[in-house]
Amino acid sequence: MKFISYRANGEETYGVYLEEEKTVWNLQTLEASVSGERTLPDTLLEAIAAGEELVICAQKWLRTAEEKEKKEAAVSAEEVEWLAPIPRPSKNIMCIGKNYRDHAIEMGGEESIPSNLMVFTKAPTAVIAANELIPAYTELTEALDYEGELAVIIGRRGKGISKEAALDYIFGYTIINDVTARDIQKRHKQFFLGKSLDGTCPMGPWIVSKDEVQDPHQLNIETKVNGDIRQQSNTAHFIFPIDDIIATLSKGMTLEPGDIIATGTPAGVGQGMNPPGLLKSGDVVEIKIEQIGTLTNKVQ
Amino acid sequence: MKFISYRANGEETYGVYLEEEKTVWNLQTLEASVSGERTLPDTLLEAIAAGEELVICAQKWLRTAEEKEKKEAAVSAEEVEWLAPIPRPSKNIMCIGKNYRDHAIEMGGEESIPSNLMVFTKAPTAVIAANELIPAYTELTEALDYEGELAVIIGRRGKGISKEAALDYIFGYTIINDVTARDIQKRHKQFFLGKSLDGTCPMGPWIVSKDEVQDPHQLNIETKVNGDIRQQSNTAHFIFPIDDIIATLSKGMTLEPGDIIATGTPAGVGQGMNPPGLLKSGDVVEIKIEQIGTLTNKVQ
Repeated sequence: MKFISYRANGEETYGVYLEEEKTVWNLQTLEASVSGERTLPDTLLEAIAAGEELVICAQKWLRTAEEKEKKEAAVSAEEVEWLAPIPRPSKNIMCIGKNYRDHAIEMGGEESIPSNLMVFTKAPTAVIAANELIPAYTELTEALDYEGELAVIIGRRGKGISKEAALDYIFGYTIINDVTARDIQKRHKQFFLGKSLDGTCPMGPWIVSKDEVQDPHQLNIETKVNGDIRQQSNTAHFIFPIDDIIATLSKGMTLEPGDIIATGTPAGVGQGMNPPGLLKSGDVVEIKIEQIGTLTNKVQ
Repeated sequence: MKFISYRANGEETYGVYLEEEKTVWNLQTLEASVSGERTLPDTLLEAIAAGEELVICAQKWLRTAEEKEKKEAAVSAEEVEWLAPIPRPSKNIMCIGKNYRDHAIEMGGEESIPSNLMVFTKAPTAVIAANELIPAYTELTEALDYEGELAVIIGRRGKGISKEAALDYIFGYTIINDVTARDIQKRHKQFFLGKSLDGTCPMGPWIVSKDEVQDPHQLNIETKVNGDIRQQSNTAHFIFPIDDIIATLSKGMTLEPGDIIATGTPAGVGQGMNPPGLLKSGDVVEIKIEQIGTLTNKVQ
């Protein structure tokens, strides 16, 4: 299922997106009209804490809803304002650096291939939705770059999670453009500042629940800028697969529902091109990940 | 004024701590009994968004409260469970790396003195209160270290804040022990993982509102381990003063009320000693900052 957050009548809410019908089913309304109860919390972030149960309930409600109930809960996808699936994460987005061999090499040669997980963060204030404008920040940076990435959404609280159990802690997957100001990233050494400008974390358009993704390590990933293919790889090429990432992160740090982990970007970022193919005003970045969807954003 | 968060009757709440009387005044109760209204939100983090107004109102309520009202709002400081002043920050804690010259040198020689602000983050799940135990993590690290730091609490939302206006955006100050697993920090290059183990961000015991701190750049700071002085410096020695930090952070990233910025640690961390004086089970770390207070935590 595709879970989205959106704004309708000025209020943030959430639902399930049915791509064929181009409709959004408001989950709170659907629950109330099918079950007569209202137990769901007010945001998708909070609802995700229910983990797989949320997916199972949503499927049941969609299946059993009658015509009248459907009418109440469904809205046209074009009539609502789409938000990032988690518009305001409750902590920084965790990002894995250099998780594709070819990208590590383009950024600093063979010696920059990491032998241990590299983790930095992006501020939650950086998050924007699919189709929102990425600010150009021409006064702050001369090197704004894209990074297409598969992102994991955690669904269960856990610490000391084993590699074997790691995938059970996932709620689903989305797409992140880890937009980076390369000059700021380099100047300040630790990556946080160059990764955290407002609007430099486009996310979405939805979260696909994990039951619909056969194997997260067999997904084609492709980034286009103005229609030209810049990044083309497959998550099979991760240096650190997702179970490894979750096990390492959670060794001494509790992971919580709604935590977002961006799994790293393949070769082909603007900085790695000769001459560099960095972002400029008006550029359109499309990141397509197999079985997940396409995240499109234009630079202001 | 000293603002604290605490738990009473199983509920998180907050108040003002009067050190001489060793009492805590519950701010929600005080407001209700003095003004007959209840406008304050449920957590100190949310209340801080009111900025200076919160301080002015709290002062007024304390001044005008009559005996009956005082009785209702005051509790003995020993009867409540003290929490970190912001037990659950709404994003990662931002930390300035190597902001004292001598500490930069002890960690890597002259060439490690930064010419630009270095910013990394700690996960919000790392926060613990004064007097809570710091886990020893003997199975994960052989190099747990202390770092005494002055922390700034932001009180107003802002972006592109000028150095001149920067101090207006501060709500107050607290103390943070930026406990660090040096081996994890080194192994994973970016600092996040080695800085984010659960329990490695002792904070408190309170937030001192900024009106009570004459000059945040003239504060003695001292860290003791088991009574021995390890760090002794003054915030006058910051490489990047607070106005600089706020201006640089907010250039392209919105700062929000309740944001926490740890300003860096002076020389004298365990890793810099010969032989190293790293933390072990049973060690007691006390960080004392002039005009702020003392943060004490024992290693489990």
